Amino acid sequence: MEKDLFAVRWMDPRAGGPAVRLLDQTLLPERVETLDCRDARMLAEAISCLRVRGAPALGVAAAYGVVLGALVDGDAPGAAQLLIAQRPTAVNLRWACERVLRAGDHAPRMLAEARRIDRENAAACEAIGRRGAALLQPGAPSRVLTHCNTGMLACQGIGTAFGVVRTLFQRGALAHLWVDETRPLLQGARLTAFEAATLGIPHAVIPDGAAASVLGAGEVDAILVGADRIAANGDTANKVGTWGLAILAAHFGVPFYVAAPVSTIDFATASGAAIEIELRDPDEVRILLGRTRLAPAASPAHNPAFDVTPAELITAIVTEHGVARAPYGDSLRRLCRLSVSERGEPG
Amino acid sequence: MEKDLFAVRWMDPRAGGPAVRLLDQTLLPERVETLDCRDARMLAEAISCLRVRGAPALGVAAAYGVVLGALVDGDAPGAAQLLIAQRPTAVNLRWACERVLRAGDHAPRMLAEARRIDRENAAACEAIGRRGAALLQPGAPSRVLTHCNTGMLACQGIGTAFGVVRTLFQRGALAHLWVDETRPLLQGARLTAFEAATLGIPHAVIPDGAAASVLGAGEVDAILVGADRIAANGDTANKVGTWGLAILAAHFGVPFYVAAPVSTIDFATASGAAIEIELRDPDEVRILLGRTRLAPAASPAHNPAFDVTPAELITAIVTEHGVARAPYGDSLRRLCRLSVSERGEPG
Repeated sequence: MEKDLFAVRWMDPRAGGPAVRLLDQTLLPERVETLDCRDARMLAEAISCLRVRGAPALGVAAAYGVVLGALVDGDAPGAAQLLIAQRPTAVNLRWACERVLRAGDHAPRMLAEARRIDRENAAACEAIGRRGAALLQPGAPSRVLTHCNTGMLACQGIGTAFGVVRTLFQRGALAHLWVDETRPLLQGARLTAFEAATLGIPHAVIPDGAAASVLGAGEVDAILVGADRIAANGDTANKVGTWGLAILAAHFGVPFYVAAPVSTIDFATASGAAIEIELRDPDEVRILLGRTRLAPAASPAHNPAFDVTPAELITAIVTEHGVARAPYGDSLRRLCRLSVSERGEPG
Repeated sequence: MEKDLFAVRWMDPRAGGPAVRLLDQTLLPERVETLDCRDARMLAEAISCLRVRGAPALGVAAAYGVVLGALVDGDAPGAAQLLIAQRPTAVNLRWACERVLRAGDHAPRMLAEARRIDRENAAACEAIGRRGAALLQPGAPSRVLTHCNTGMLACQGIGTAFGVVRTLFQRGALAHLWVDETRPLLQGARLTAFEAATLGIPHAVIPDGAAASVLGAGEVDAILVGADRIAANGDTANKVGTWGLAILAAHFGVPFYVAAPVSTIDFATASGAAIEIELRDPDEVRILLGRTRLAPAASPAHNPAFDVTPAELITAIVTEHGVARAPYGDSLRRLCRLSVSERGEPG
């Protein structure tokens, strides 16, 4: 089943396209169904309903969506505009659309650029996986705890934190994966567990509140999480629940690693204090997946989407260009200068 | 609505009984419905389906159930046997049934004894509430975070940790209650939030993973939890997630209080290391409330019902007879000697 695990796939005319095929993430894990988006409008609707999510996967989907706009509707810029409008805060989405448009008004060249974005994404994940695995691999096979979904479904590539897990597994260096279910939207239980089960990775889902139990029982060698935004000083915004895990890791003396591409590092943000936390709809907490009421309608709920883990609780930050350690102000800048010079762009 | 909040109520023949009326907790918070159990068999079935749960509430329900057995079936011992068999590990259930039987084979005397158990329960909760409130009250109104359900629905009385919250609220000394939703069975979201909403207590439900966010934002003055079993050294077994909260409390310098009746203290258990943790059905994690699949069927889940918070993370233990502080080996014994002598029983 492994070869069928993907977030986004371009279907060319010989394969029944043109279409952007998505693994419909809203139906997981109950039903594994794909959806072929045959024009940009259909893809925009799918993005808006979260059938595909995760910044890197959204970027790849939108890149192919612009090609679809050129081929089907004869209007690539209109398609880009429509796609970007669905998730206005998703930076990757805009960036990917603009990159495809810059390739020129010629569908084959646009498709080549979209495929390049897809491949670069995959390559960054592979590199993060390798570097992270090298960090954890010495010694006995690792028992890793992770939070949220940072795998193929979020990244299109093998993933960031999950990419490290997958690389360890392929090398026979993973003993067990603990999957935080990650309330309220359950990206751990629904998506990470699905990826682990599909790949045959030994794992178990736990309620978020059981993390102290498994850490305290000595059953975790490392915690590995992704990042939504990393400030210049290393403070890291990620899915709510990450900060608590970092505090538990420090308490139990377990290393706590963040894995993310360098594009996640935001040097314009000095520290976590400057990161605004998105407060989402209380009904995500009160009504499960929009179907089952969990808390009274009369009860307010507080639903911060993210929290910010202070840099001093982070053992290391793993990127495709190298591993940063405290003091992060210096090490992150060094990594990014490296990444710019590697690409041959001005430092 | 407050006067309608109860777990168990005896309905005498003038009120349409004899019957044991339960607030059906399996339907909360979607539907607030009562169920009149008209014989011991019907009550036994309700206990088995968790329509009433929580050790003290189970004790009161079973006490009235034995009276029902005497009045309706003419077989009080048979009723007791049937009721005890439903939750074999619930110590309060057996203890309450036996106490009612010892009152003698005479329904009015048995009913009087059942009512006495109900009143004693309520009195213990009131005392815990008063002592806990006195501990927290100095200074500004408190913002409290709690876990699981320790209120009327669990205790029949005003509750243990929730009894403290309720007492603070009645005195105008509660600013806000943060309610951990408490996965997997959601006793916080479903039951504690229902009690808070019913009583008009200002509150908000949070995913368990958001506790670090609200603590880190300085929005919590104290964490208050109940206990399932307290070892002789103060180590406390409680609903999974409690240990993690205690670690967060220590990290953020917020006091962490346990509130429980002295009957919860088990001097035969030297420390938490001797407390066996019940591992429950993985489907409680994977399938929400038996209805909605959250994780793939192929994914194992790890579902410890409890965890053990080490005594050194507990600021104080509040009982109906007083407040114990470290070293708990001494302070808990003193409290229990006090409680025996207060009752006029041999020390």
